[in-house]
Amino acid sequence: MFYHDDELQFEVEVEDPDPRYAKMLQQALGGQEGEMRVALQYMFQAFAIPKEKNEVRQFLMETATEELGHIEMIATAISKNLQNASDEARREARESDPMIAEMMRSGQPRQALSAGLHAMPVDANGNPFTGNFVVASGNLAADMYANVMAESTGRLLATRLYEMTDDPGMEQMWEYNIARDTMHQNQWHAALEDLGEHRPVPNSFDQSKENQEYNYTFMSTYKDERDDPKQPWTSGESPDGKSEFTYTPRQPGGGQPDLDEMIDEMYNEVN
Amino acid sequence: MFYHDDELQFEVEVEDPDPRYAKMLQQALGGQEGEMRVALQYMFQAFAIPKEKNEVRQFLMETATEELGHIEMIATAISKNLQNASDEARREARESDPMIAEMMRSGQPRQALSAGLHAMPVDANGNPFTGNFVVASGNLAADMYANVMAESTGRLLATRLYEMTDDPGMEQMWEYNIARDTMHQNQWHAALEDLGEHRPVPNSFDQSKENQEYNYTFMSTYKDERDDPKQPWTSGESPDGKSEFTYTPRQPGGGQPDLDEMIDEMYNEVN
Amino acid sequence: MFYHDDELQFEVEVEDPDPRYAKMLQQALGGQEGEMRVALQYMFQAFAIPKEKNEVRQFLMETATEELGHIEMIATAISKNLQNASDEARREARESDPMIAEMMRSGQPRQALSAGLHAMPVDANGNPFTGNFVVASGNLAADMYANVMAESTGRLLATRLYEMTDDPGMEQMWEYNIARDTMHQNQWHAALEDLGEHRPVPNSFDQSKENQEYNYTFMSTYKDERDDPKQPWTSGESPDGKSEFTYTPRQPGGGQPDLDEMIDEMYNEVN
Amino acid sequence: MFYHDDELQFEVEVEDPDPRYAKMLQQALGGQEGEMRVALQYMFQAFAIPKEKNEVRQFLMETATEELGHIEMIATAISKNLQNASDEARREARESDPMIAEMMRSGQPRQALSAGLHAMPVDANGNPFTGNFVVASGNLAADMYANVMAESTGRLLATRLYEMTDDPGMEQMWEYNIARDTMHQNQWHAALEDLGEHRPVPNSFDQSKENQEYNYTFMSTYKDERDDPKQPWTSGESPDGKSEFTYTPRQPGGGQPDLDEMIDEMYNEVN
Amino acid sequence: MFYHDDELQFEVEVEDPDPRYAKMLQQALGGQEGEMRVALQYMFQAFAIPKEKNEVRQFLMETATEELGHIEMIATAISKNLQNASDEARREARESDPMIAEMMRSGQPRQALSAGLHAMPVDANGNPFTGNFVVASGNLAADMYANVMAESTGRLLATRLYEMTDDPGMEQMWEYNIARDTMHQNQWHAALEDLGEHRPVPNSFDQSKENQEYNYTFMSTYKDERDDPKQPWTSGESPDGKSEFTYTPRQPGGGQPDLDEMIDEMYNEVN
Amino acid sequence: MFYHDDELQFEVEVEDPDPRYAKMLQQALGGQEGEMRVALQYMFQAFAIPKEKNEVRQFLMETATEELGHIEMIATAISKNLQNASDEARREARESDPMIAEMMRSGQPRQALSAGLHAMPVDANGNPFTGNFVVASGNLAADMYANVMAESTGRLLATRLYEMTDDPGMEQMWEYNIARDTMHQNQWHAALEDLGEHRPVPNSFDQSKENQEYNYTFMSTYKDERDDPKQPWTSGESPDGKSEFTYTPRQPGGGQPDLDEMIDEMYNEVN
Repeated sequence: MFYHDDELQFEVEVEDPDPRYAKMLQQALGGQEGEMRVALQYMFQAFAIPKEKNEVRQFLMETATEELGHIEMIATAISKNLQNASDEARREARESDPMIAEMMRSGQPRQALSAGLHAMPVDANGNPFTGNFVVASGNLAADMYANVMAESTGRLLATRLYEMTDDPGMEQMWEYNIARDTMHQNQWHAALEDLGEHRPVPNSFDQSKENQEYNYTFMSTYKDERDDPKQPWTSGESPDGKSEFTYTPRQPGGGQPDLDEMIDEMYNEVN
Repeated sequence: MFYHDDELQFEVEVEDPDPRYAKMLQQALGGQEGEMRVALQYMFQAFAIPKEKNEVRQFLMETATEELGHIEMIATAISKNLQNASDEARREARESDPMIAEMMRSGQPRQALSAGLHAMPVDANGNPFTGNFVVASGNLAADMYANVMAESTGRLLATRLYEMTDDPGMEQMWEYNIARDTMHQNQWHAALEDLGEHRPVPNSFDQSKENQEYNYTFMSTYKDERDDPKQPWTSGESPDGKSEFTYTPRQPGGGQPDLDEMIDEMYNEVN
Repeated sequence: MFYHDDELQFEVEVEDPDPRYAKMLQQALGGQEGEMRVALQYMFQAFAIPKEKNEVRQFLMETATEELGHIEMIATAISKNLQNASDEARREARESDPMIAEMMRSGQPRQALSAGLHAMPVDANGNPFTGNFVVASGNLAADMYANVMAESTGRLLATRLYEMTDDPGMEQMWEYNIARDTMHQNQWHAALEDLGEHRPVPNSFDQSKENQEYNYTFMSTYKDERDDPKQPWTSGESPDGKSEFTYTPRQPGGGQPDLDEMIDEMYNEVN
Repeated sequence: MFYHDDELQFEVEVEDPDPRYAKMLQQALGGQEGEMRVALQYMFQAFAIPKEKNEVRQFLMETATEELGHIEMIATAISKNLQNASDEARREARESDPMIAEMMRSGQPRQALSAGLHAMPVDANGNPFTGNFVVASGNLAADMYANVMAESTGRLLATRLYEMTDDPGMEQMWEYNIARDTMHQNQWHAALEDLGEHRPVPNSFDQSKENQEYNYTFMSTYKDERDDPKQPWTSGESPDGKSEFTYTPRQPGGGQPDLDEMIDEMYNEVN
Repeated sequence: MFYHDDELQFEVEVEDPDPRYAKMLQQALGGQEGEMRVALQYMFQAFAIPKEKNEVRQFLMETATEELGHIEMIATAISKNLQNASDEARREARESDPMIAEMMRSGQPRQALSAGLHAMPVDANGNPFTGNFVVASGNLAADMYANVMAESTGRLLATRLYEMTDDPGMEQMWEYNIARDTMHQNQWHAALEDLGEHRPVPNSFDQSKENQEYNYTFMSTYKDERDDPKQPWTSGESPDGKSEFTYTPRQPGGGQPDLDEMIDEMYNEVN
Repeated sequence: MFYHDDELQFEVEVEDPDPRYAKMLQQALGGQEGEMRVALQYMFQAFAIPKEKNEVRQFLMETATEELGHIEMIATAISKNLQNASDEARREARESDPMIAEMMRSGQPRQALSAGLHAMPVDANGNPFTGNFVVASGNLAADMYANVMAESTGRLLATRLYEMTDDPGMEQMWEYNIARDTMHQNQWHAALEDLGEHRPVPNSFDQSKENQEYNYTFMSTYKDERDDPKQPWTSGESPDGKSEFTYTPRQPGGGQPDLDEMIDEMYNEVN
């Protein structure tokens, strides 16, 4: 069960509100690299953990819960950036309210039209959050890689947003959030290490069933045949420790696709 | 530039067509773990590589091109599973064509209604492919983790689909495709190793700017304070090799959010 | 059956075309609070009315038909705002056509690229209209509340758009449309009153089947137990007139979720 | 900030797992009438409340937090319905695992293919949850009507799902959840009553600016002129108490739309 | 302005209700080839017609209005197919209501869960209608080709649906609707003929600005160079009457893409 | 199978990078009229061609392959327009990097936030590419009309984009691409001519089954009865050569829809 108290996880202050930055912050809220995604992703992963592994369920759920707190922080930051226009903004807008003037120019005026100058569950392009962002596969190793990826692109987003503001409050918030992304990246890597041998994912599939001719060779698709470029992915031991990379300059060839015509009731005229 | 020839990359035969399996195969075509996603993901990643790293562009583009060939294979497999119903299917359907009877029952009848019993750019639930599936961040390490994740969930999907068929042709196709997923997982790991120290991603961000109090500590969000559970993510060296994990049983606390009322023109009545 | 004539429902004039306002108007056309939504919502609700209640079907369908006329008005307003740039816009754009210059800046350049400077079935953020906006539940009371909500957010949008223009023609159009929203809000409330006792929705569900311990109590989810805040939702008669509100400072507690492991064919490795 | 503990809000037991019911339950999780929607809707509404009205923020946030607990319950119910097939299901499926056989028939096989037989953030049709479901307008009265509507359609969904199961555990869960929906419907109505005069929404818009000729009249759009049908929405006092309904059998008429041709650079050939 | 009366455009009777057919009919309502699409497509095209061409606006709008009537017909057909289960369906379902049993099996149970066994604005796969289906380009010739295409795939869908039913009422409805599709296909072709020389679209673009080397040649992308296959698209006069087709067995070649590295603030590490 | 080499199909140079133009170019990449759509559309159409018509499969696949090359060109053009800001842009932005300043203003800042100033699979409004754009019906004539439409709106988009740039490199790229669109429009028309009599689509449906009273008449939906407007679509031979157009000033009339009430388990209260 979930609980709440009145405190933000960490302070969110904005000295000089900037509606353009409010738009950018939406990516960290409802975007593919945002807090709604990781909160729900870790939560759905936790929902699939069997009772024998309750410590993993707790691990995922505690982090999901922290990300819920980040949703709250970013939403607060967005509202504060939409609240009081700076003097410069006022001068620029002159004839009308500067917030409204900015919304007229904005790529996502729905912050004003639909939300009354507040946060929305959308990304910086103005697209709605979608359940497609959430990856919870039922396989813990696959999920951990999904989480490493989510925190890598998430921290990348945070550093880019950090570069786009000079506001001391916003900088402080990002210094905190980037630190948390550092922790989260590391903790998912720690979980992967704790899993021991898990590659290739899924590791429980009997690898002797794989086609043994093509499972460790780089097959070139370059138009003309080329020599082995001697890259780390064409020779040397494979990272899963189970074989050696080789290089194949051509394709196996599977014959032409040979479809019959479909039943008449489809009215598929092809001539 | 791209080129094509008449051969499939590998043989696609179906002995006993099964329209239900045709529906399942859509996940491997237009789904989040499917071939359209990886083909386009590796392609968009390649599009962002600067000219100094042409060998990386080629690496990504050659694999993208192979995945285009997998799109062709899976689409062929779908059409072949929709082509001639088995005797058993005919008996079951009796009064009408068994394919049409099955489409009437199906969760995605558009294979018949919109495509005349052929493959579509949708997933197994019948949802259209979306550009949201494609991750290309501009940062190579983040992209490589996205690719490891894509090939992990992709190989997981392939093994699940392998378990759902007894058709010898389909089994052979999956033995091949699972082998390729093994290779691709390994090659992206090899590229990550080749990058050297790259964690936390992005590595070029000056870590001294991070909040140093919260970047390597697991902060519990459990309702009541609990002791350190002594897990691999609460103590020991962090996987990036830069610090030690600690455990914090409580939250920093950022004060209450304190928003002012918005401008009158928004008609935000809150009392 | 539907019919059409050449007249708009009400005049649509634009003295000083403004492409930014054309973008804002899209919310009132293809947005969640827009005319396409209500036209289709009332129409689909009407489609579900049994023959015994033909006067309700007519009521819904007549209003749906009026909203079709509003689609026509707003689309005309958008085209007119994209038609002739004002002198000020010309001065600002100088080197190129001011409409094209504005489209280059715009958050939804598809008004030019895809529609040749005309209206599109999208919202102000540029997202396509979706059938998800349409609520038609088969239950008339639930539908009426959906309509009250649609007209409340719709009138709110209209007042916000009214504040964002100084064009006399646009102001006059909104004065008319806001008036119609007033009427529509009132008419759905009148229909709710006419239904008599209908709460809680659905009213025909035998309420004695509900869990009688938790159906009229506010259960606090605050982290720490708190005293009854004595709000209108923690004490006093419940608005459906069937009970008294109480306050419960803690959660019932349902035990830990206890999932078994899934079948092997899923390859769900969790350790 | 949010917190979590290991308990479900209320017990979730399944005696006789049924994968078809697992599919239906998705509507109560990721669907338009589901728990993800209300949890996020109340949360985003809370994010927009100014500091003067902290008791309203708490009210919204406490209920949002409860709905997070319902997400956890429904997700558990879905996994449990996918876990152990009943004897009847085993007999029906004979040759293969009954869960896999059912997934092959299912309208949303991604529960197996993508989630390893677990819950996903999608609805019963298999469509992903979308941020479009979340309504948070910045205006409290409009938000309360959105909440009444959400709980009305939500309780309607719950009663329909209640009728579709005979499992004692599932029935008990719904008896609890329907009770909570009764409470939530009532609490939002109580908040509306507490607001006092608030209609038409938004109430702060100066109604004298509305077009006074058309704000309380039902204008028929029936093809041929008809007499006043004497319905509660064509005569009598309007529910906002501000006027009397009248009936107008014809349309005001706004003249023909009169667009000019667009600039040449659009290549809009119309003849 | 639009109007409505109580009659359907054409009779809709169902002798033997079939919920599976109700699912299929959704494609003709909310699908890419369905009535909502053409109604809105012709309407948005009409919205863009300048006043000089009022007869074209009327032509488009009258057909849009007819398609609104088709929405009404198909929605009625769906409700009627969900209304009374046949005896056979009752026998099959035995223990429970046959409609509910079928909804439990269905690929789109939301017809029951969300709409109370009525039509919804979704397609046969259960995906919501989207504004993306609507094509209105501002260029009349392009629009007419979009309409020919819409009526071609629409009539194809209708013939497929015709083959999937034996119900006399449904057959009669399709015989009517297929006839209307025949008319609509023909009328858009007639409009194209009336436009005179209009190819290539847009015809007003000065063709001398095109690259004259590559505008009428088929450039092979086959992996290995091949001889001219002597097809109607590699030789002979081009259909626009302006040139002769030629065949080019190889690609022009544009050099390697040569991107510089991006600014540091993006944290695009590529090595 | 597909192949690739290092060359672009045609040169892509940008003299004066313009981030606003980079946004516009997204429509030609991930938009409804863009290269991803046609590449995948022709590919999926090819996937459905039976073995007897291999020359058609090749025709479609070779053009699909060329469009893959156009994806590569447009993506390169986007990156180059985001790479080095012009002097003017630098002056305008003054205090910060001009690219970042522009992204703050942009309608799709995700080019920076998510892609590090590179191309994305989205359109100019910032919406993701969707499989819905791809039309492959299984019927060749319907597909050819879909292709004519795609190349008509595609060439229209290209001419509009051509007008929005003065950059010599970009102009040269469009002169090439517009030429290819001219060829592609013509080649699909040539294929239609080669099909011979194919109208109305699908032509194999026995037209004597159509309702013979309504298949060649324009039925007016104008509110009041009007005389035959004597347009090319109300009289004269129909373009399919099979009948004469007539004009019907009124509707057939299908009686009122007469639905029964639904089963009690739906809780559809309508009074």
